[in-house]
Amino acid sequence: MARNALVDVPGIRVGHHTAIGDGFLTGTTVVLAPDRGMTAGVEVRGGGPGTRETDLLNPTAAVESVHALVFSGGSAYGLGTCTGVMDGLAERGIGLSVGTGPGEVVPIVPGAVIFDLGRGGDFRARPTAEFGRAALRAALQDEFSDDTGAAAVGSIGAGTGAVAGNLKGGLGQASVTLAGGVVVAALVVCNAAGSPIDPRTGDLLGARQLLPVDGPPPPVASAERLADLTEVVYRRPGGPVFSFGPEEAIEHTTLAVVATNANLTKSRCGRMATVAHDGMARALNPVHTMVDGDVVFGVATGGSGSSPPEPDLLEFHQILTAAADVVTRAIVRALLAARTTSTPGGTWPSWGDVVGG
Amino acid sequence: MARNALVDVPGIRVGHHTAIGDGFLTGTTVVLAPDRGMTAGVEVRGGGPGTRETDLLNPTAAVESVHALVFSGGSAYGLGTCTGVMDGLAERGIGLSVGTGPGEVVPIVPGAVIFDLGRGGDFRARPTAEFGRAALRAALQDEFSDDTGAAAVGSIGAGTGAVAGNLKGGLGQASVTLAGGVVVAALVVCNAAGSPIDPRTGDLLGARQLLPVDGPPPPVASAERLADLTEVVYRRPGGPVFSFGPEEAIEHTTLAVVATNANLTKSRCGRMATVAHDGMARALNPVHTMVDGDVVFGVATGGSGSSPPEPDLLEFHQILTAAADVVTRAIVRALLAARTTSTPGGTWPSWGDVVGG
Repeated sequence: MARNALVDVPGIRVGHHTAIGDGFLTGTTVVLAPDRGMTAGVEVRGGGPGTRETDLLNPTAAVESVHALVFSGGSAYGLGTCTGVMDGLAERGIGLSVGTGPGEVVPIVPGAVIFDLGRGGDFRARPTAEFGRAALRAALQDEFSDDTGAAAVGSIGAGTGAVAGNLKGGLGQASVTLAGGVVVAALVVCNAAGSPIDPRTGDLLGARQLLPVDGPPPPVASAERLADLTEVVYRRPGGPVFSFGPEEAIEHTTLAVVATNANLTKSRCGRMATVAHDGMARALNPVHTMVDGDVVFGVATGGSGSSPPEPDLLEFHQILTAAADVVTRAIVRALLAARTTSTPGGTWPSWGDVVGG
Repeated sequence: MARNALVDVPGIRVGHHTAIGDGFLTGTTVVLAPDRGMTAGVEVRGGGPGTRETDLLNPTAAVESVHALVFSGGSAYGLGTCTGVMDGLAERGIGLSVGTGPGEVVPIVPGAVIFDLGRGGDFRARPTAEFGRAALRAALQDEFSDDTGAAAVGSIGAGTGAVAGNLKGGLGQASVTLAGGVVVAALVVCNAAGSPIDPRTGDLLGARQLLPVDGPPPPVASAERLADLTEVVYRRPGGPVFSFGPEEAIEHTTLAVVATNANLTKSRCGRMATVAHDGMARALNPVHTMVDGDVVFGVATGGSGSSPPEPDLLEFHQILTAAADVVTRAIVRALLAARTTSTPGGTWPSWGDVVGG
């Protein structure tokens, strides 16, 4: 039974740790590989990324697989959450074997962060290594209800403090099963400097591709409500109008992991990450700017044991197409799940409350 | 008077050479810099690129500016057109000075190609160095009517043999003038493996962003006509339907140059190219695949003489947003200008003829 989430890829587990209140509006999300690891690639495309262990995902670097991925709030401070995940994995003997004993391992745990400092009201209320440990425990147990469990979307985990344009952002997920049983799924933390909506109509940009064939038209916002959203508007005769988001925006970031149960090489995982960025472009405008640290990881679980054969060129083409699509859908789900949020650090309306969807 | 074309950036000239008939359906387009050159960056994102002189556009490489860019049909054979452009520039004394005499120059002429071999019926009827010389002459003179001149769109120059999905592609251009007088313009050769349309409705994907605020709804195609377009369709319950284009597709490519009169560093030109790829993602689905050699050059003319100041972060943000937008618009214009084309090598319907726009 598909949950429309990253865990639809067999063997992948997801855990969130969320901190709201007492100055916090942030969190951490762990994507846990099967114990044998998963093949991984990455593409960093934003102008201001915050990452850890991405260089070893270069196709020419030695390590072929990773044991977990970490997304976190906290800007560069949040990279410390990877340490907690590493420690938790090492205690369980999970990692790259580098010694003679069973516990002599180095877990490979790349991570990337979003800027959400101060959104809960206290600039110093940010994720620590313990956030990573807690998210890992959640991933190992998936002990929570659907509201906070592996398949959850909204203001949870690394998406807790996320915003998108002037709207509340968050964490989204989506999956698709291709003919032949290949699953492609995405988990996205949408914290974009650009806007997820068309300010002419209020449509979610990404939803235009996602409506059912015979589905209803998207809701339309009034110009007045939209005016409240767009501090900076760029208009030309007969052309489009884009929101640039707030001028004071100094740092944002949209993160994604796209996973599949296909048997992909490390290089192909990187290509899947590259094309998955197109899914951001279809849901956010602008994106990949100097004030975004956009990163996509591509991971594949099919490359060991009773491996399926590597996809041929057309099959891989379909996986690439789906990879971009699930990213778009995950961003739409993040925006649909968002709730208007007020803290001592600010107020961010949800798309639903502004547009009335 | 803006021509909605690359030449709206002052100092930039464009010339096309087009070959149709006798087995040909191909051509070459030259983008000619001001004689002092223009700052340039590049991002190669397709899985199967055909390029020349792109490595020197790396921000860490020595050369800061280029004298011309060349787009051509002919797949890798078409890279020879750069030789003709170099020879023509050298004869005029234009190039990087490397000697003591006025003619001792090396013109810096990066180029990229699309796959169109055989589309005119003869696999060997492809661009040569003479095509580059002819396009350069056209750029120097802009002697032609609007149908074939610098601002032309459609099946001209490097876009002559281009297709997009199963439709006729071509060459498109667009420009925008930002507040403050900065011009951002694009020239695109759209030859994508992916589709430019939503097969549910026939809409041009890129046109969804480009309609006037109070403009008419896009035309809708019948399902039957669309069925003829989509050899491979990917459908899921309640989800979107995408055309993958023909299964026999072996090589495509969408090329773009985005130009501005702003004063951008080489690194910023590269970032402009990066974000401009998002404009492809909004108009083509999928894009940046293993059978696309997608390349975007970013060029800026504002970095010499009485230079304007470098844009601040927000101004650059607006240039980046516009860069993606003009690429989307240029692709839409290429598709709107296309005419159904039949040769001994095949038949490619235009979007207008299929959808009835």
